[in-house]
Amino acid sequence: MAKNMFSQKLNKAILEKNSRLCVGLDPRLELLPKTILNAAIKKHGQTNQAAADAITTFNKQVLDTVVDLACCVKPQIAFYEQFGAEGIQSFWDTVKYAKSLDLVVIADIKRGDIGSTAQGYAHAYLGGNKLFNKKVESDIDSITINPFLGEDTLEPFVSVAKQEQKGLFVLVKTSNPGSKDLQDLKIDNQSISMRVAQMINHQAESLPLDEYGYHSLGAVIGATYPKSAQQFRKVLPQSIFLVPGIGAQGGDPSLLKHFFNKDKLGAIVNSSRGITFTFKPNEKNYLTDIRKSALETRDLINHNL
Amino acid sequence: MAKNMFSQKLNKAILEKNSRLCVGLDPRLELLPKTILNAAIKKHGQTNQAAADAITTFNKQVLDTVVDLACCVKPQIAFYEQFGAEGIQSFWDTVKYAKSLDLVVIADIKRGDIGSTAQGYAHAYLGGNKLFNKKVESDIDSITINPFLGEDTLEPFVSVAKQEQKGLFVLVKTSNPGSKDLQDLKIDNQSISMRVAQMINHQAESLPLDEYGYHSLGAVIGATYPKSAQQFRKVLPQSIFLVPGIGAQGGDPSLLKHFFNKDKLGAIVNSSRGITFTFKPNEKNYLTDIRKSALETRDLINHNL
Repeated sequence: MAKNMFSQKLNKAILEKNSRLCVGLDPRLELLPKTILNAAIKKHGQTNQAAADAITTFNKQVLDTVVDLACCVKPQIAFYEQFGAEGIQSFWDTVKYAKSLDLVVIADIKRGDIGSTAQGYAHAYLGGNKLFNKKVESDIDSITINPFLGEDTLEPFVSVAKQEQKGLFVLVKTSNPGSKDLQDLKIDNQSISMRVAQMINHQAESLPLDEYGYHSLGAVIGATYPKSAQQFRKVLPQSIFLVPGIGAQGGDPSLLKHFFNKDKLGAIVNSSRGITFTFKPNEKNYLTDIRKSALETRDLINHNL
Repeated sequence: MAKNMFSQKLNKAILEKNSRLCVGLDPRLELLPKTILNAAIKKHGQTNQAAADAITTFNKQVLDTVVDLACCVKPQIAFYEQFGAEGIQSFWDTVKYAKSLDLVVIADIKRGDIGSTAQGYAHAYLGGNKLFNKKVESDIDSITINPFLGEDTLEPFVSVAKQEQKGLFVLVKTSNPGSKDLQDLKIDNQSISMRVAQMINHQAESLPLDEYGYHSLGAVIGATYPKSAQQFRKVLPQSIFLVPGIGAQGGDPSLLKHFFNKDKLGAIVNSSRGITFTFKPNEKNYLTDIRKSALETRDLINHNL
């Protein structure tokens, strides 16, 4: 039993905190508290550095606020890549701070590429590379990946994840309406998404199980598709589902039970804006709002297991 | 006629240089010239900063060497993301230097995500965002994107690209063997890749054509699949194809004509390692080797139009 493997860490956090809530960290400059923004601009002018500093400051406050309520956190890297190298530094500073609070970190990067490029991405975010002669470690516990290029492009990710005891969430059925365009197409009565689920099962054959019966090769399945979730649950009983799409995107919380196993494990439910940006930029007590939203969302999920 | 639109710029470069060669910039530390690596380590120790500096120095030399032989260059961002914020700075420094040489730059990022996240990626690499009150410009001319999440996730990219006169290359049929797993699956005798080609056509309806008859919404089609290329050429006569996979991956140069239109336009052929890493790390005249490889590859492509 690998005590340090991703699924073990995540399941332990879920049970200890009684939380299946993943707090998404998708910072938007225009929604940040004005006090934080103004301080950063005063220090660095209207630059990428100011944006990055403001984001890091806000994220640290959010992390302190939700640390006992979230089983994991998920920075979405697009919102950091917008601010160049400074934005990426903010991403890594956020990851490091989350790790210092012992939070499980999922980097939402949705990468996918062939051969050595896929390996490059895996090393970049999961570690295990050598920088000159030193082995590089990563504070990230798991990443999201895109399967469109085929199973041979999942392998480098699985290989690095296995070696580093990290996790992966493969996009299976995404939460947006357009996910029907390709993912729902059926061949011999089986959808493309189901084919991806089978790839996951195939790749997971070589992976160890944690003490709860799960491995670290998970699936992204939108909260907006609870009926599909039931089918994927049957095919992937040992995978953890990362479930985005409640709140603004319209996923119905009362149907979340379709994403979980009977052990009340097997899924984590993400909320980003619904937790971190429920306040007005001029509001002073925004952390009270954030904590309240996190608490309510955690309880809403637990109520619907 | 938009003189500054991506396809116009690229087609002009192709005709002026008589080159359809895209030089890929996929730096690998272990293959860099020892002189460059040692100088960077001496200055910065065995750090990400040393790796990033060595990569930037090497890339600038490569760009100076191939500037008249390549119609465009294509940094693959995974190889930069491995070195954290410093690596991303090297990526942007490389892009900036390429632009200073008036080279067309395609960032190979293969991003794909929903709604505002897709828009975030588009702004990050194609510009058009506002940083506080200033509009941000990007030196990148075009990016690669992944269509797995559906047509509604292409729209934010198309919208930003149109506004900024930038280009996009959508993954249609990738060069790896595993591209058969999902991309070749057929529904009503039509492959997933062909569905993506139709999405491109649909999205391109609102895009302007350049004076050569092309728009800026291209497709990635692996050199390893020349028969498929003929079919895609028929369906997408006004798209430019980005063609990876000659050389190490086994694409046959003598079949490249299937990727082009009769006007000898409509495709660019990428080579990365086959141009930038044909030398041994201890070799002193590596730039001579790089120039020779670029020249030969450019001519090989032109010979097979």
